[in-house]
Amino acid sequence: MKTDIEIAQESVMQPIAEIAEKLGMSADDIELYGKYKAKLSEDYIESLEDKPEGKLVLVTAINPTPAGEGKTTVTVGLGEAMPKIGENAVIALREPSMGPVMGIKGGAAGGGYAQVVPMEDINLHFTGDMHAITAANNLLSAAIDNHIHQGNKLMIDLRQITWKRCLDMNDRALREVIIGLGGKINGFPRQDGFNITVASEIMAILCLAKNIDDLRERIGRIVIGYNLSGEPVTAKQLEVEGAMTLLLHDAIKPNLVQTLENTPCLMHGGPFANIAHGCNSIRATRAGLKLADYCITEAGFGSDLGAEKFFDIKCRFAGLNPDCVVLVATVKALKYNSGQIKGEALKYENLEALSLGINNLGKHIENMRKYGVPVVVAINRFDTDTDAELDFIENYCAEKNVKCSMCEVFAKGGDGGVDLAKKVVETIKSEPSEFKPIYNVNLPIKEKIETIAREIYGADGVTYTATANRQILNLTNLGFDKMPVCMAKTQYSLSDDPSLLGRPSGFDITIREVNVSSGAGFIVALTGAVMTMPGLPKVPAANNMDIDRNGTIVGLF
Amino acid sequence: MKTDIEIAQESVMQPIAEIAEKLGMSADDIELYGKYKAKLSEDYIESLEDKPEGKLVLVTAINPTPAGEGKTTVTVGLGEAMPKIGENAVIALREPSMGPVMGIKGGAAGGGYAQVVPMEDINLHFTGDMHAITAANNLLSAAIDNHIHQGNKLMIDLRQITWKRCLDMNDRALREVIIGLGGKINGFPRQDGFNITVASEIMAILCLAKNIDDLRERIGRIVIGYNLSGEPVTAKQLEVEGAMTLLLHDAIKPNLVQTLENTPCLMHGGPFANIAHGCNSIRATRAGLKLADYCITEAGFGSDLGAEKFFDIKCRFAGLNPDCVVLVATVKALKYNSGQIKGEALKYENLEALSLGINNLGKHIENMRKYGVPVVVAINRFDTDTDAELDFIENYCAEKNVKCSMCEVFAKGGDGGVDLAKKVVETIKSEPSEFKPIYNVNLPIKEKIETIAREIYGADGVTYTATANRQILNLTNLGFDKMPVCMAKTQYSLSDDPSLLGRPSGFDITIREVNVSSGAGFIVALTGAVMTMPGLPKVPAANNMDIDRNGTIVGLF
Repeated sequence: MKTDIEIAQESVMQPIAEIAEKLGMSADDIELYGKYKAKLSEDYIESLEDKPEGKLVLVTAINPTPAGEGKTTVTVGLGEAMPKIGENAVIALREPSMGPVMGIKGGAAGGGYAQVVPMEDINLHFTGDMHAITAANNLLSAAIDNHIHQGNKLMIDLRQITWKRCLDMNDRALREVIIGLGGKINGFPRQDGFNITVASEIMAILCLAKNIDDLRERIGRIVIGYNLSGEPVTAKQLEVEGAMTLLLHDAIKPNLVQTLENTPCLMHGGPFANIAHGCNSIRATRAGLKLADYCITEAGFGSDLGAEKFFDIKCRFAGLNPDCVVLVATVKALKYNSGQIKGEALKYENLEALSLGINNLGKHIENMRKYGVPVVVAINRFDTDTDAELDFIENYCAEKNVKCSMCEVFAKGGDGGVDLAKKVVETIKSEPSEFKPIYNVNLPIKEKIETIAREIYGADGVTYTATANRQILNLTNLGFDKMPVCMAKTQYSLSDDPSLLGRPSGFDITIREVNVSSGAGFIVALTGAVMTMPGLPKVPAANNMDIDRNGTIVGLF
Repeated sequence: MKTDIEIAQESVMQPIAEIAEKLGMSADDIELYGKYKAKLSEDYIESLEDKPEGKLVLVTAINPTPAGEGKTTVTVGLGEAMPKIGENAVIALREPSMGPVMGIKGGAAGGGYAQVVPMEDINLHFTGDMHAITAANNLLSAAIDNHIHQGNKLMIDLRQITWKRCLDMNDRALREVIIGLGGKINGFPRQDGFNITVASEIMAILCLAKNIDDLRERIGRIVIGYNLSGEPVTAKQLEVEGAMTLLLHDAIKPNLVQTLENTPCLMHGGPFANIAHGCNSIRATRAGLKLADYCITEAGFGSDLGAEKFFDIKCRFAGLNPDCVVLVATVKALKYNSGQIKGEALKYENLEALSLGINNLGKHIENMRKYGVPVVVAINRFDTDTDAELDFIENYCAEKNVKCSMCEVFAKGGDGGVDLAKKVVETIKSEPSEFKPIYNVNLPIKEKIETIAREIYGADGVTYTATANRQILNLTNLGFDKMPVCMAKTQYSLSDDPSLLGRPSGFDITIREVNVSSGAGFIVALTGAVMTMPGLPKVPAANNMDIDRNGTIVGLF
């Protein structure tokens, strides 16, 4: 089969102005970035306010293998299939970070015949959103150190600065650094570190902000650290929230691109799915709902992380009502969840492993139903899947009274998703969603964490480190407790132990650290050491990339 | 008078597609970035190759006061004046760095009624060129530390890595840092530092590269440091020159914008004028020459730095033949060059100071003639200039047999530059340029430095520190000696001592350090400590910036 970039380069894109026109936009409603990318203008976004909204479909997944299960690919394929059954749809996706593109992951615009294009642009600088976020993040950092250098009127405690610099790069050497060396003219030395840009709170804020005023408000609320009296110090006190907002005034506008089959895709924002909430911007999702009868979106990692935060954070903040969940699984991942086989062995029929691992799917189905949202299971098919295995899954889903579709969008594009599209539409028409978040935001921090751990992860309880207990007490005293909780946890298990596959039970979750992202508006609870700056592998993907004089790009995948 | 941003916001821009059309471009020849910015497509740039070239006008200046003398403003005003005398012109300028915009300097797109617009975009992210350069620079840095972490096959000497990371930010705390802390998973600790992006060699390379192949070649040649045997290690050996080129494939395309009076402006690249050569890209200047009868461009700082490098580096590399030099002076700066007055006192008539300082202008005129290029002096007029002062300068120029024009473009736009435009055209038509660089590139490094010092600065000789002597020997042994020399020197004096104003004599230049920028293709000779990462002032310009919900921007100037 051809590589993703070969397929993408052979595609015939429509000028993005034509895609926009089909959605009812005029030339003045978009700002072009070349012929195939555009941003929706601020006036246009505001003009959508009073329009009726379509149905919201969330694509999420079971606990994956390390290779991932093709959630974005299914999302794109479903979006392409909708017109084939006479329904119109807009896709809303996260935009990729360049760090992983240069590292090990390659692109993040779907795969095979279910891709978003122009994939080269999307995977590199795109419309500059990541760069704008990097700039805003680092302006705040520069303002912190400049404030201290110029007299430190706010009495910022150099030992308690929590705001880090960032770069959209996989660069392990920047995780822990000492800055300000070289004597008086270079400021005060202190410890610092760099996050990858998608892990910056600015990214989370951009994705949750309703408009430019809300953006400024949230930026102003960012806690950059504490003063010598232990009180939080904010970006507003440093007087750079206006300039930071200004740096983001284009980045906050959703980007419009298209799939290989010309389905419109709003690709906007992409916060880390562990320390942040892992979904595209509220503005993009909301615009998608206004522009089509169906808006199809996704959330990072498995449903225990991605869907939970989509529901409890994003939908709560935005007042969104999801109508259907598509739960992506693969035969491989279900066998992997048996804990008995991995690697090459996943390619061969193994009904025993499948029957052991499938309770992972069962738990995810149960979880989605706890939110009151109807579920359709989508099996993302691989060549190596056997009929017996697929039959087994179909029977399992039938027993659980959940629709199940065999999806071949990677190989066939929209055609491979027609059955899924039909089942999604059918489900929405026959099973009304009764969405509600899983916890009340006004509960104490620990009760919120415990609700998620018991209801979603299936844990017996939660233990807290001494640090976490101290931090929870402190955040509660500072009034930062009435916010949703953003859980940081491994994506490989429903528990916080990546080796507990399938549907683990009889375990506790350990909360090691609890921080506040007060601009984003959530509390981050970390169950383990979370790496917010990846490293490059032995042979980085970058080593194979190039472009020739005719503009042909190689090595992106 | 209105502020620059107020004037800019009141201007009526033409859609950039119309500006392009007037230059003979079709819709396919440009890539739009919104309605008022575009990049020239690679195909279009190649299609210009065989077209005849117009006349090249360089705008440079005398040694300035700390406030600057309005070189960009005169360049823009001259470009606006040309159509008023029936000539067509394209302006070629550097694009501004965001660091100084957030710091103390404000924008860099001209001033008053001689500005390039949309100034808000130009002064912020523009078309993303700076961000792309930052990304390419830092990918190389990540590749260096990753290479070392993964086994260091090239035996890179951690003590001799000369390649630094960069950010487009004024951030003194990043000048000297220690990276790679935190133990084994974060790599090897070492000293590093951040340059501001415009000081990155990538910026110099982008501005000197002829096309994408030349760009890749130059990037591959970058010396990132030395191995344990003292041999240079290059970006090519780290195998990231392809990915770095890919990251720059849009950035290498010149940007098209317009002035307040709709004169086309190619704004592209902006290397530091001290450790690099301080002019916009060769591709932009060359495109300007193909697109109009006159291409008007500028170079950073005074002519001793900017014009010298424009001639000896940029013109030499590009095979450009400048036809006329416009030497910008102000009454204030000429009085300042007396060394007798500064600050407020410069606003009052002082013919004695003027008569003492004017020999600075004399030396710059002489210097330009040494290159064989005819000169026109442009006095950038201020309200405070008196008739007696202006008469004095006119007489001085007449004695020197050089045309002199009183220029009021800041207050009047193109109308204020009609006289200058006439004199420039007249000069070009009557005085053919006999341009030649001041030194032979194949001379030994010291002879090149000494030629510049004697001929241009007026020094008696050059002394070298022990470090510089050792470095010159080393670079010569490594075969890095047959390149032009890029001098890093104070802009305030013809000498390397900022307090020696006017036309100093009887002084030596001290060379403290000599490095190679082998990708750019020049040797950097530093006469003093050069700051390649600025800091923010006590009250950064950023503190006054904001944008409201209607998109109105304040605080940019």
